[in-house]
Amino acid sequence: MSAGVVLAVDVGGTKLAAALVDSGGALLRTVRAPTPVTDNAEEIWAALETIVAEVDDDAVRAIGVGCGGPMRDELVSPLNISAWRDFPLADRLRQGARGRPVVLRNDAIAMAVGEQSHGAGRQARAFLGIVVSTGVGGGLVIDGHPVDGPTGNAGHIGHVVVDADGPVCACGGRGCLEAIARGPAVVAWAVEQGWSAPQPDGRSLVADARAGDPIALAALTRAGRALGIACASTAALLDLDVIAVGGGLSAAGDLLLAPATAAFERHAGMEFVRRCRLVVAALGTDAGLVGAGVLAQQALAGGTD
Amino acid sequence: MSAGVVLAVDVGGTKLAAALVDSGGALLRTVRAPTPVTDNAEEIWAALETIVAEVDDDAVRAIGVGCGGPMRDELVSPLNISAWRDFPLADRLRQGARGRPVVLRNDAIAMAVGEQSHGAGRQARAFLGIVVSTGVGGGLVIDGHPVDGPTGNAGHIGHVVVDADGPVCACGGRGCLEAIARGPAVVAWAVEQGWSAPQPDGRSLVADARAGDPIALAALTRAGRALGIACASTAALLDLDVIAVGGGLSAAGDLLLAPATAAFERHAGMEFVRRCRLVVAALGTDAGLVGAGVLAQQALAGGTD
Repeated sequence: MSAGVVLAVDVGGTKLAAALVDSGGALLRTVRAPTPVTDNAEEIWAALETIVAEVDDDAVRAIGVGCGGPMRDELVSPLNISAWRDFPLADRLRQGARGRPVVLRNDAIAMAVGEQSHGAGRQARAFLGIVVSTGVGGGLVIDGHPVDGPTGNAGHIGHVVVDADGPVCACGGRGCLEAIARGPAVVAWAVEQGWSAPQPDGRSLVADARAGDPIALAALTRAGRALGIACASTAALLDLDVIAVGGGLSAAGDLLLAPATAAFERHAGMEFVRRCRLVVAALGTDAGLVGAGVLAQQALAGGTD
Repeated sequence: MSAGVVLAVDVGGTKLAAALVDSGGALLRTVRAPTPVTDNAEEIWAALETIVAEVDDDAVRAIGVGCGGPMRDELVSPLNISAWRDFPLADRLRQGARGRPVVLRNDAIAMAVGEQSHGAGRQARAFLGIVVSTGVGGGLVIDGHPVDGPTGNAGHIGHVVVDADGPVCACGGRGCLEAIARGPAVVAWAVEQGWSAPQPDGRSLVADARAGDPIALAALTRAGRALGIACASTAALLDLDVIAVGGGLSAAGDLLLAPATAAFERHAGMEFVRRCRLVVAALGTDAGLVGAGVLAQQALAGGTD
């Protein structure tokens, strides 16, 4: 039983999580903690080390980690954790790992691995997982293996261009999917059009859209259209079987997915592109932990890289 | 010496080619013939069989084939060879192969493999080869292996969306790179703008652009911009090191590549995207044969699929 137990870690801008994961992808025990709001890198590391220690036990044979990107040579600089710039996360974890393998990936890649192994992407040979929340991230899993890219940054669908003359993106580019479809951009667009709410965030935008608010609906339609265009481009490039959309804004369900699917169908002409299915992710906020667990198990099996 | 010799075949809409290729990627002997203009599938096969027989000899240990796409389960339906629809090209070649392995890929994938192995993509771990001619095709080579996709159609950069409200594409989609940047579309746009030539084709358009014709220059600039946008999207998705542009229209050189690079730089914001280099392909019309040879050698080494 415990032969296949691994430790999964998920590092995000608002919360940290650690879990024991069995070989079937089930989370046996999970601990979560808020990510400290601080400019002290060590304070965040201490919080993470604490929850890892709470979960770790003798049965754990490998450690898998998903962390916000970008990263380079296993040094992480998560956009949403400004205190960590080139932080040596994998090395730190290895120091406490007593020789057990430690595998680090972008959190969107971990999410995609989780969904492909145990969620919405099962059976898919060519799979894209997308996270639409504060940013728009993505991960590719081809023939069961995550696509990392030479610098570990493959899968960044958030920076696929969907409107060449569109808004400037935080990355410095223009018209990126993320500049249009990330939660804060969707909310900002709605506010510009006259939408208001006591707490004008993604959650209340989705609630108002459900209640029929025309501006909130239009904001999700605009984001969904951008998503569908980027998905059509990616499906053509990679002959994808399935694309699963997760992250906070995917709580909008069909209010986001229906316009995404309509745009996908408008732009996907070739038969092999049209066969790709666009679905909502299945594992919710657990996807990153499940995927980090799978990555750790692949490392044990010698199946990574 | 002859231990590594393979036979490479390149099937295109205007010409057929077969060559002996050594393990260093050198073409030892090449035979070319025009593709018969006919609606008789067997007539085209007979022409191909003839040049293959001319080149084949006892030293040949495997056969690699690049053929215009799309394809499905090794049945080819090249857009530019209307007589072949679901034509069993691999099976036919296997019948004459006396047990030697036969590997079939989209021609753009073969071109990309050739450029990555022996041309502009050497050293690249994540490489995209693009062919801009009658259509716009592409092939991806990641860590030395071509990316095929579940239906063999990965790499279709021609159907990445570069202008969501742009022209309808022959594929049925809208705003695809191919709809804007394929040779005939570039020529048609120039003619619409008032350009004329005794023979209004890509070759004379490039010649006129070289001579300073403002419409011809604008047509190549427009195509280059579309190319740069699609390249920025693909580099973000796949963390590419190098993109090489070949095909007939790449004869325009910097008249196409400079606006492509400018657009790439406008849209590539993240550091890992900006590091990707956009270059002209190195092997010219031989790239497909060289790549088909490499694919055959990989099959011998057991390195394919």
